[in-house]
Amino acid sequence: MMASVQEMAVPPDAMTGSTTGLPPGRFGLADVLAEHRRGRPRSPAVVDGGTRLTYAQLDARVGRLAAALAGRGVGRGDRILWLGQNSFRVLEVLLAAARLGAVVCPANWRQSADELAFVLQDLEPAVVLWQELELGELVREVRARDAARAHWLQHDGDGADSYEALVAGGPEQAKYVAGTGQDPVLGLYTVAADGRSHAALLSHAGLIAQGMVISHTHEVTDASVCLDSAPFFHVASFMLAIATLVRGGLNVVTRRADGVAMCEAIDRERCTHALIFPPTLETMRDVARGGHYDLSTLWSTPDLSDRPTTMLTPLSAPWARRPGGYGQTEVGGLVTFNALGPPGEGGFGRPSPVTALRIVDEHDEEVATGDVGEISIRGLTVMTGYHRRPELNALRARGGWHHTGDLGRRHADGTLTFVGPKTRMIKSGAENVYPTEVESCVAGHPAVAAVCVIGVPDPRWTQTVRAVVVPSGAVTEEELIEYCRGRIASYKKPRSVVFTDALPRTPRGDVDRDAVDTRFDGGGYPGAG
Amino acid sequence: MMASVQEMAVPPDAMTGSTTGLPPGRFGLADVLAEHRRGRPRSPAVVDGGTRLTYAQLDARVGRLAAALAGRGVGRGDRILWLGQNSFRVLEVLLAAARLGAVVCPANWRQSADELAFVLQDLEPAVVLWQELELGELVREVRARDAARAHWLQHDGDGADSYEALVAGGPEQAKYVAGTGQDPVLGLYTVAADGRSHAALLSHAGLIAQGMVISHTHEVTDASVCLDSAPFFHVASFMLAIATLVRGGLNVVTRRADGVAMCEAIDRERCTHALIFPPTLETMRDVARGGHYDLSTLWSTPDLSDRPTTMLTPLSAPWARRPGGYGQTEVGGLVTFNALGPPGEGGFGRPSPVTALRIVDEHDEEVATGDVGEISIRGLTVMTGYHRRPELNALRARGGWHHTGDLGRRHADGTLTFVGPKTRMIKSGAENVYPTEVESCVAGHPAVAAVCVIGVPDPRWTQTVRAVVVPSGAVTEEELIEYCRGRIASYKKPRSVVFTDALPRTPRGDVDRDAVDTRFDGGGYPGAG
Repeated sequence: MMASVQEMAVPPDAMTGSTTGLPPGRFGLADVLAEHRRGRPRSPAVVDGGTRLTYAQLDARVGRLAAALAGRGVGRGDRILWLGQNSFRVLEVLLAAARLGAVVCPANWRQSADELAFVLQDLEPAVVLWQELELGELVREVRARDAARAHWLQHDGDGADSYEALVAGGPEQAKYVAGTGQDPVLGLYTVAADGRSHAALLSHAGLIAQGMVISHTHEVTDASVCLDSAPFFHVASFMLAIATLVRGGLNVVTRRADGVAMCEAIDRERCTHALIFPPTLETMRDVARGGHYDLSTLWSTPDLSDRPTTMLTPLSAPWARRPGGYGQTEVGGLVTFNALGPPGEGGFGRPSPVTALRIVDEHDEEVATGDVGEISIRGLTVMTGYHRRPELNALRARGGWHHTGDLGRRHADGTLTFVGPKTRMIKSGAENVYPTEVESCVAGHPAVAAVCVIGVPDPRWTQTVRAVVVPSGAVTEEELIEYCRGRIASYKKPRSVVFTDALPRTPRGDVDRDAVDTRFDGGGYPGAG
Repeated sequence: MMASVQEMAVPPDAMTGSTTGLPPGRFGLADVLAEHRRGRPRSPAVVDGGTRLTYAQLDARVGRLAAALAGRGVGRGDRILWLGQNSFRVLEVLLAAARLGAVVCPANWRQSADELAFVLQDLEPAVVLWQELELGELVREVRARDAARAHWLQHDGDGADSYEALVAGGPEQAKYVAGTGQDPVLGLYTVAADGRSHAALLSHAGLIAQGMVISHTHEVTDASVCLDSAPFFHVASFMLAIATLVRGGLNVVTRRADGVAMCEAIDRERCTHALIFPPTLETMRDVARGGHYDLSTLWSTPDLSDRPTTMLTPLSAPWARRPGGYGQTEVGGLVTFNALGPPGEGGFGRPSPVTALRIVDEHDEEVATGDVGEISIRGLTVMTGYHRRPELNALRARGGWHHTGDLGRRHADGTLTFVGPKTRMIKSGAENVYPTEVESCVAGHPAVAAVCVIGVPDPRWTQTVRAVVVPSGAVTEEELIEYCRGRIASYKKPRSVVFTDALPRTPRGDVDRDAVDTRFDGGGYPGAG
């Protein structure tokens, strides 16, 4: 018991010098940066337009920023809201928050003023760092609704209330305040399984561990140059930058996913890693056709056609040979990787070495191999919880496992198949029916172009299963029901099939299940009050 | 503060199912094994002579072993002493201890009965697992001095009090008891800077983090096959095995560093990694000359001449291109690696991403770049402390940094030079003189074969510096003193030089500084009472 007692005896201000023990959990992102200052002072750390900082310069700025933020009252557990697009200052403020035990939240700037006002009220930040360029009008609309508690500082200005004035005014001396590696340091808003928006809090330990994992799967080293063009409010984008930071590589930031700016940055900085979504890639192809840029560090073909389009790494990286995996914001991004271990039946690989994954039923018992259940995860990269959601946290983290709200199955070889989000559950008699599972089955029929499965209220069975189908050829209701028989358990197969021309969809392109319910008589779901 | 409060609210038995939060620090080695059972059940985990276990089989045996040990009263914080040579059972009992929150200590079986009796008394284990083969007589001598508190179980027997009877008798059901990733799980005895033997306790978090680091530097993957022939009581040997375990590779165990057994194992199992010390390599070369074994997975030349002889990895591993680094048992093995980052002036590289390193003076202030001081380290891999040494732990871990007792300097490029152990400090006037630093200087003279620098009591200066030199050619006292002038600070240069035929040495081959003091009038060291 000695070690446990020793750990408990460490005072909360251990980092300031009075500790009598060395719990490994105290190591955090501030330590990582301080070590880079000692270990690679002259190596380039960040590039953003005309700004270019070595690790020594970055550490000096972060030290002054942290001291200035502390002077404005920011301390352990406080939040800092980033109301801007990508900037090297997002990484600076993350590292400053790391020294203070505070949390940085890069908001999704594509949101409406209403949505951002909710974030502001929910996060209750001590400081808001905002951007005039492109976002000024939106920011003023949001700020008008602030209960005037936060310090508002413009990151792209040079006035008295600007970020650069804050950094310039900070004392030279960097100071660590109390904090541990188990503390959260990053908050990312995400729509959870309950359909509402919550800030998932990720810890120092989680970011460092995920940095080490991605360093391995994506072959990130101290020589890597990572293009941070995808928005930092996405976990995948942030984690690629963190892996680069943890390994002492170079982060090259563009304000947004602008094809010209990205081509220019790749050419100039010789970028080796990037996260690029398909629409942006199309723009880049147009730019690349001009032949003005050397993009050969990321693509070997001039038309940018030889690589998977989302996450680009060196060709020798395990990820390049076997991309893909499963993850979500709440677990720090990807937790399973095809790059880890030999291929198997599932298309989503196996958990990283710092995580564990179980498929469980509604009683939290592990289901049999091959059966569908909820994906639950524990490990170093899992969030410490949602910001200010004690009841939801207790529910999602029950038994020490994070319940993802996603359905999956594990094959006998240990690989995962991600089945779909457990957004709805249909209650048919005593049985639970997951729409996504029935949809996977119906969608296998050659005459089905799209399908959404709903529950229709039923006085005897609580609900019955209905498939709303967009056909791609000639098919009858009877044929589709017969097709499901034997492929899935009888109680799961549709009792009725309705045909339609198109399924209603959300602006993001997902099927709008509420609208399908409204149009095709769905409802009466368990737990829906 | 919310997250901190949430963390504090987690009950100590969180792993049993009553947690309301997910502190990332709770993830441990038991989780790693359980995940391998799910993720790669049919992959080979350990091979040892005729024993061959998949991860599913290993997990089942570990579950029964843990349950049986719990039945013998082993619980959180208890110690298990391994009094045997290498065996797959060392890994099994480590993983069983991981489930119980207990600590396993593989003793150095080359020690005398007196030394092992000290370990037994100091560790106070709940269980001793002992070996008859080669060690039976020694064990009985040690056991005769046990205060009869431990359960003694023979690991290489099949009687009622044998390891295999224990495993066979364990219930099928595996159960986790309270424990966290911050708990120690491995104890390794090491001679510390005070010249005495202490058990350094290494945590789950530290082993997993070091496993990830070595996985990267040494290119350990799920396809790796690690030859565990070097004794497990050495941290370097253990960590290579841990990296293989964490990544889901195969550990191939030989009872001892026997050249024939090793060649046979490499040939049969296609080993990709090994830790082999030079004397063993000579034996293996003799064996290899017979041409009976295919050792091409580790060497491409038949005479085993094309690789560094200590730590062998695939040729594509960063370690193979740039081997070497600095470490000690107390920090979980290697903390700096030439394999991380570009080469620099220092020959020992930079810290791993999960550690930080500072060179400090006697007031714990960081010294200037290039100056010699004590190497201090913090990070995920650092020990939780020595077993039952509260005063020493407070001293060594002061300020939240582990003080290694080793001297080093960092160059402007951030790389480390390891200068030597800070075994003695000479007080000359108000100045501190580290013998190792003076020795480095004197040893640079072409006519010096060996040197030991001591402090001679002096009424005016407290001590004066004396060099005891084994010459390799003609040289005078005056020439050597003049040689040091300008190369090191004047107060550091020897006031006197004494020539001798040979320096007294310890059985391990190190210079016996006490004996040098006795023969050449050394003494009066600060802190020596």
